[in-house]
Amino acid sequence: MAETDQRAAQSAPSAAYQKLERIFARRHHLGQAQRLLGWDQQVLMPEGASEARSETLAELAVLSHEMLTAQETSEQLDAAERAGVEAEQDNAAGEIAMDAPDTVWRAANLREMRRLHAHASAAPAALVAALSKAEAKGDMAWRSARAEDDFPALIPALTEIVALQREAAAAKGEALGLAPYDALLDQYEPGARAARIDALFAELAAFLPDFTEDVLARQAARPTAPPLPGPFPIERQRQLAERLMAALGFDGARGRLDVSLHPFCGGADDDIRITTRYAEADFTSALMGVLHETGHALYEQGLPAAWRAQPVGRSRGMALHESQSLFVEMQICRSRAFLSFAAPQFREAFGAAPEDPAWSVDAFAARAHRVERGLIRVDADEVTYPAHVILRYRLERALIAGDLAVADLPGAWAEQMEALVGVRPPEDRTGCLQDIHWPSGAFGYFPTYTLGALAAAQLREAAEAALPTLWDDVASGDFAALLGWLRGAVHGVASLGGDSDAILRQATGAPLGVDAFRRHLEQRYGPDAAAGSP
Amino acid sequence: MAETDQRAAQSAPSAAYQKLERIFARRHHLGQAQRLLGWDQQVLMPEGASEARSETLAELAVLSHEMLTAQETSEQLDAAERAGVEAEQDNAAGEIAMDAPDTVWRAANLREMRRLHAHASAAPAALVAALSKAEAKGDMAWRSARAEDDFPALIPALTEIVALQREAAAAKGEALGLAPYDALLDQYEPGARAARIDALFAELAAFLPDFTEDVLARQAARPTAPPLPGPFPIERQRQLAERLMAALGFDGARGRLDVSLHPFCGGADDDIRITTRYAEADFTSALMGVLHETGHALYEQGLPAAWRAQPVGRSRGMALHESQSLFVEMQICRSRAFLSFAAPQFREAFGAAPEDPAWSVDAFAARAHRVERGLIRVDADEVTYPAHVILRYRLERALIAGDLAVADLPGAWAEQMEALVGVRPPEDRTGCLQDIHWPSGAFGYFPTYTLGALAAAQLREAAEAALPTLWDDVASGDFAALLGWLRGAVHGVASLGGDSDAILRQATGAPLGVDAFRRHLEQRYGPDAAAGSP
Repeated sequence: MAETDQRAAQSAPSAAYQKLERIFARRHHLGQAQRLLGWDQQVLMPEGASEARSETLAELAVLSHEMLTAQETSEQLDAAERAGVEAEQDNAAGEIAMDAPDTVWRAANLREMRRLHAHASAAPAALVAALSKAEAKGDMAWRSARAEDDFPALIPALTEIVALQREAAAAKGEALGLAPYDALLDQYEPGARAARIDALFAELAAFLPDFTEDVLARQAARPTAPPLPGPFPIERQRQLAERLMAALGFDGARGRLDVSLHPFCGGADDDIRITTRYAEADFTSALMGVLHETGHALYEQGLPAAWRAQPVGRSRGMALHESQSLFVEMQICRSRAFLSFAAPQFREAFGAAPEDPAWSVDAFAARAHRVERGLIRVDADEVTYPAHVILRYRLERALIAGDLAVADLPGAWAEQMEALVGVRPPEDRTGCLQDIHWPSGAFGYFPTYTLGALAAAQLREAAEAALPTLWDDVASGDFAALLGWLRGAVHGVASLGGDSDAILRQATGAPLGVDAFRRHLEQRYGPDAAAGSP
Repeated sequence: MAETDQRAAQSAPSAAYQKLERIFARRHHLGQAQRLLGWDQQVLMPEGASEARSETLAELAVLSHEMLTAQETSEQLDAAERAGVEAEQDNAAGEIAMDAPDTVWRAANLREMRRLHAHASAAPAALVAALSKAEAKGDMAWRSARAEDDFPALIPALTEIVALQREAAAAKGEALGLAPYDALLDQYEPGARAARIDALFAELAAFLPDFTEDVLARQAARPTAPPLPGPFPIERQRQLAERLMAALGFDGARGRLDVSLHPFCGGADDDIRITTRYAEADFTSALMGVLHETGHALYEQGLPAAWRAQPVGRSRGMALHESQSLFVEMQICRSRAFLSFAAPQFREAFGAAPEDPAWSVDAFAARAHRVERGLIRVDADEVTYPAHVILRYRLERALIAGDLAVADLPGAWAEQMEALVGVRPPEDRTGCLQDIHWPSGAFGYFPTYTLGALAAAQLREAAEAALPTLWDDVASGDFAALLGWLRGAVHGVASLGGDSDAILRQATGAPLGVDAFRRHLEQRYGPDAAAGSP
């Protein structure tokens, strides 16, 4: 056998690996159906269909779970790992690049298949079924409890969910060799560990309270920007949003913008769908929401076409996903450079005069950088947002550890809220009843919001270093080079890196840290923040 | 064992039957996803997603096919039939009624499961795959061939499809004990046989040419109705359509009205979706289209909730489905009674004066009953429509029999068109290139349009007999009793009857015939058609 033949044979995928690709491709297409049906549920579905739709989605989820945990999948995973061709290539070059050889992609794909299989197999089927039932009940109980500001009404359902999640965390931790809470984290952000988050959040908690205090004092000493006079016709808001999405690089032939109660980014391959909720009285809130979702959408549209039906071709994790939305919204679109590009378009869209001070770049920047101690996470600015997340992180860790009873949540929430944000909720509706996450079973998810904010700042600094004309480009509305950089650094490498840190290390030279985020806040909100700073 | 216990044991479903219900329910939910994704593809999907969406739909179709033909499904079908509890109950009472005992529903369900399994298993997997590939190619080739009026460009793809369909017809016929073309018919309309259709169509062909001639002569002797002055704003057209849909009984909490290039009725359980295409110059064409689709939608919304996830709970066949759309559009909504109810609403929607002769009930009736020898099937009136169908039926039988070569289609089409409709297409675009059916592999489908028209007339006569105030109710916009009758006679019995004839016999006292349709045409278009007739 000639040497080249030997090498070709060595790099050919094993039969077992090829079977796995078929299994996972099929599962991918089921997932596409689930995603599109979920989008439709939020955006279009008539109310009378909610039960029928839930049944269909549940059936697809069970089918997908069965495919993943099937005996055949297990056997082929074992066989493919024994064949070893893929495993040998894993991290051989240590390189995470779109143009890595297929052998490297395949090795990473096998690793991701194993990861998904391990997570899905870790909890017993009866527990998975019990959780799914309890979470559907919890979701419903939360909706009415929040509407009526009646936390006690939620206690039974949430207590059951916490008990089942603790059980799942223990089972998953046992199977995956992780601490229970880490096993939950790992579902949303592969590789995330509480010890690491503790350290990052401790750094944040150490400087944010005083920093916020100072920002608010400086802000109080300045005149407030004049308010924008509405109403702003919704059709014009939509057109403006689509124009800016397109400018940022959103491919309108492979996606849509629609309306839903809660904005999100969903859809399927070549069909990435953003939603927003317009208000006639203010256009900036919906618009910033659209630009945030555009960051998510650019990630999805930039996943490698050749691998997107395989686990390795999907987005890396929720923290990195959030880094992309916050990169676009916070790092780019709330910058003065972007606002100087956008302000003339705002004026044109709504027929405002250039000399109107409410429509100046300064006024837009002042409003976009306004900081406030508020009760509601989703309305929080980027300075106070981490405190909202740290609060939830602490409480959910205590719930999962068994150190906090559900009934004690309102008191603990109010206390932490006062300590971390500096305000106390007058009612549970604006306190511990505000988020759907826990009642729908999402424990270990909250930290990813702030990990994403840290990653966004770190990636922006790397982009600045790589692209010397970045801010001039942004100010002139040219995002092509920036999008190209994000494609190479994040979008196009999908899950080729084993975790977000691997991708960040390659893209920024360091694992996730707090420094870049801190520098970002100081530049934008600190005492030396010049009117001309980004 | 007490006698009641014995009876209970006898009527309990077998374990095999229960397993089958699980398999078919799962397949049902997959089908729900396919239907919703197909709707989305026609209505919302961005153009760039067409390849990805086709892949997902193909994967779901293969998965669904595999579930149906799986070894386990076969075995459980055999076991359930051996257990015999269900089979014994089949037609025991001969009664087809919504409130039939569960044992009767289950027996019919098992019969339908076997039917689906037999159809799906009849053609070898390789042939199914080859067909699906050829049909996707044929669909694309047809689009460009039609756009460029280039039939020769379609010949290779269509020749391959015909060859594969002949093979499939032979294989299915062999497996099902049917003649090849009958096996194709049976896919769309269970129980339909060419010998029966030959007889029905011969009756139609015997009276329609002279009848049409007479109608056109009478029509030419009358003054034409004044045209309606547009434009008609699309938003008002939509509101009007939704109002009339609701009046007819369409439940807006369990369905939607949207826009697509080709109008259709799709969607899922409790979520039935109609589409239309508006034109500003004329509102009646889109509106009549909506009312036609409303007939389909009422059928779907009226399927029995307890059985709709099972084969027996689905609509009976394409002929009966078309009977519902034609019942609503042709029998009801084009009646003078309905137009006298609707005309004031038309005037109100578009701000017309009651004394304007173009907006009178007479003018609407004259336009709604206008007959014309045309080239295009989908634009044809109810008098000339059957000729369009008979033409296609004859040609597709010849294609499947091997008596007509694809290359000879344009000539045969033009010749038959002249003989049956009395016009000759000047080009293939308005001739044999007008329909997507054959290039997408649908042979045996065309006859169902006219079978549906016959059934609609027959059902309307039965409804008149059952509901003495029918036309007064229609004229006053009260459709509740009529909908109730359709629910009991057709919608609510789903596929409990083995074929459409069984349902028609129960509802009208006779199997499908031509007489009621002929009487309908004579009443509306004949020499004695009074101005006051329905």
